[in-house]
Amino acid sequence: MIPFELIQELSIKTPSKIVLLVMDGLGGLPRPETGLTELATATKPNLDALARESICGLSVPVAPGITPGSGPAHLALFGYDPISCLVGRGVLSALGIGFPLEPTDLAARINFATVDEQGLVTDRRAGRISTETNRQLVALLRQIRIPGVEIFVETESMHRAVVIFRGPNLSARLGDTDPQRTGVPPLPVEPLDPEAQHSADVVNRFIAEAAKILKGHYPANYILLRGFAKYPHLAQFGDLYKLRAAAIATYPMYRGLGRLVGMDVLPTGEKFADEVAAARQNWANYDFFFIHYKYTDTTGEDGDFMAKVAAIEEVDQALPDLLALSPDVIAVTGDHSTPSLLRAHGWQPVPFMLRSRYEVPDAVEQFTERACQRGTLGRFPAQQVMLMLMANALKLEKYGA
Amino acid sequence: MIPFELIQELSIKTPSKIVLLVMDGLGGLPRPETGLTELATATKPNLDALARESICGLSVPVAPGITPGSGPAHLALFGYDPISCLVGRGVLSALGIGFPLEPTDLAARINFATVDEQGLVTDRRAGRISTETNRQLVALLRQIRIPGVEIFVETESMHRAVVIFRGPNLSARLGDTDPQRTGVPPLPVEPLDPEAQHSADVVNRFIAEAAKILKGHYPANYILLRGFAKYPHLAQFGDLYKLRAAAIATYPMYRGLGRLVGMDVLPTGEKFADEVAAARQNWANYDFFFIHYKYTDTTGEDGDFMAKVAAIEEVDQALPDLLALSPDVIAVTGDHSTPSLLRAHGWQPVPFMLRSRYEVPDAVEQFTERACQRGTLGRFPAQQVMLMLMANALKLEKYGA
Repeated sequence: MIPFELIQELSIKTPSKIVLLVMDGLGGLPRPETGLTELATATKPNLDALARESICGLSVPVAPGITPGSGPAHLALFGYDPISCLVGRGVLSALGIGFPLEPTDLAARINFATVDEQGLVTDRRAGRISTETNRQLVALLRQIRIPGVEIFVETESMHRAVVIFRGPNLSARLGDTDPQRTGVPPLPVEPLDPEAQHSADVVNRFIAEAAKILKGHYPANYILLRGFAKYPHLAQFGDLYKLRAAAIATYPMYRGLGRLVGMDVLPTGEKFADEVAAARQNWANYDFFFIHYKYTDTTGEDGDFMAKVAAIEEVDQALPDLLALSPDVIAVTGDHSTPSLLRAHGWQPVPFMLRSRYEVPDAVEQFTERACQRGTLGRFPAQQVMLMLMANALKLEKYGA
Repeated sequence: MIPFELIQELSIKTPSKIVLLVMDGLGGLPRPETGLTELATATKPNLDALARESICGLSVPVAPGITPGSGPAHLALFGYDPISCLVGRGVLSALGIGFPLEPTDLAARINFATVDEQGLVTDRRAGRISTETNRQLVALLRQIRIPGVEIFVETESMHRAVVIFRGPNLSARLGDTDPQRTGVPPLPVEPLDPEAQHSADVVNRFIAEAAKILKGHYPANYILLRGFAKYPHLAQFGDLYKLRAAAIATYPMYRGLGRLVGMDVLPTGEKFADEVAAARQNWANYDFFFIHYKYTDTTGEDGDFMAKVAAIEEVDQALPDLLALSPDVIAVTGDHSTPSLLRAHGWQPVPFMLRSRYEVPDAVEQFTERACQRGTLGRFPAQQVMLMLMANALKLEKYGA
């Protein structure tokens, strides 16, 4: 890939406008009864019409065979190396609940868990307790006080929560306490380098206090911590691409990911039409719009094929209003695949199309997995998307003489 | 590529089963009379039917334009970087004859050669003596004794043999003695770092003794040594992929390559049907089967177009028995191309297909070089094959949150 220093050197500020529409978990798999994927089943005349005017292909989020989480998948679409720029789970958890993380904060994912009388882990997820129970337990954990450190505990869902430690000299160079299997004791927090000893002491004390508080709350009588992380320092869109970038997303995680790379987060309603309206209202103020549509992923994770089809159709119906804003360049893709058949993220490459007056459209006539296989872009790394968008917006100068 | 640490972190043990069928030297070139390659000439209904259910493409063994030997070509298919994981020629020679190499052994390729009265090399291959003559000379070389070192000399074929030195403190940091041209004297063995001085002394003494023994055996009156190597330490399939892996191969070299990466070598007969039977008999005990079929390569190296066609047809006929085992994922490809037209390994990319219920099949209808050109995988590095197999067997967990 092109080094960031070079991108920064070549990128220029222009009035042209870019839209990157990410339909989360877009890629799917054929339903055995019909042989058609969710995209191929949906009635989506506007997406198909756009495909006919576009160059198409299949975007590979991280590498062939790798199933990405939302973090690496989005960072790749934003042009970052998803391997070297891994954002820790603690930070993603904090972003996911919309917690206003500060640069010196130390965040970690909490799993409520079950330990037996000998202190051995018997269930790493505490029987997947309800989110309501989680909230009650989190309220108890908020009573913990450790001198010199401010502590925030927040519910995610079910057995998952997040803890943020705020104070001087906190390091994320800490080992997980989750032993990743049952029948063994939880691990103590170990410092991974000597400067992390203070942080390890703080977290071990927090866990000890938590164990006392949770003692009578079987099955959630213990906590396991993992993914210790601090807010990463990523090159910012304004510096790197000279873009004034806006993020429009209904879920906190994606607003957080946008903020991480220097995007302004715009207020929006829940529907795709609301997101388009948010873009319209702010059209004059930005030259890059990251629009994140969540429901293609949630329906795929539910394994609800027809609900995913309906989600695709919801986007299709409001797409003309987005195109009416006349973006100079628009790309439509997903961050990764979430086939209903898998009920989970998948490794499969993701349909991609990019419309610009400066590309020779290919022969793709429909926006489906199978049609995009034959697009001119072939399979390509998601990390290349930003440079293609920038180039087509005439925002990249010539390299070399 | 994905770092091994990450693969190891993401890979999980599951009961699903993977078959990697390597038809050695599979790729070919059109015969001028018909314009059809060996694959396109063969009657192979079962391979073609499998292609229709698969994702297809062309696998690039090492890099465009690079003609690989069996070592790097297989290491790439197994997921190793074929450039940084080069296995020395001495070790490959030892593997090729099935020699039980120990970790401290030092191996080198021998070429019988001709020197004139001034000691200048006049033929680096001793007129390509017969394998029978080679065996007689090897018997003589086995008389050489050097204190503190055990020496094994073994025939490969024609002018090629291998020598293995066994003893303490042997180093492979030695320069070749083959001057790579005629009219000059052979090079002495030079240590490439100071710790290799002892090894250089041992080998130079061996060569001096050999020269005395071979003096009257014109044209094979000298030996040239190259490719000094010790058994490499490669990440093992069990650790890296959590696979219990089996190698089924009729030639020692491929059994040795399988053993090198931690596969168990299964007994098998000579025919492809025997190899399928070996897989069937051991089906319950392994979750990864590397099946190596040699005759597509030997016939290609012989320049025998129709024999290579027949070899492909032999595989096709037994393929249904392999598919009847119901592997969760199967890939069929070659390690490299061996076009009959070239009578040698080639650099051409290799037809590849992978069948899994978790991929959207492409429009490829035949398993040929030309049809695979249009497959959804395009041209891709062979090194990506293992991650695609692992993902489709649901043996890789999500990367990042």
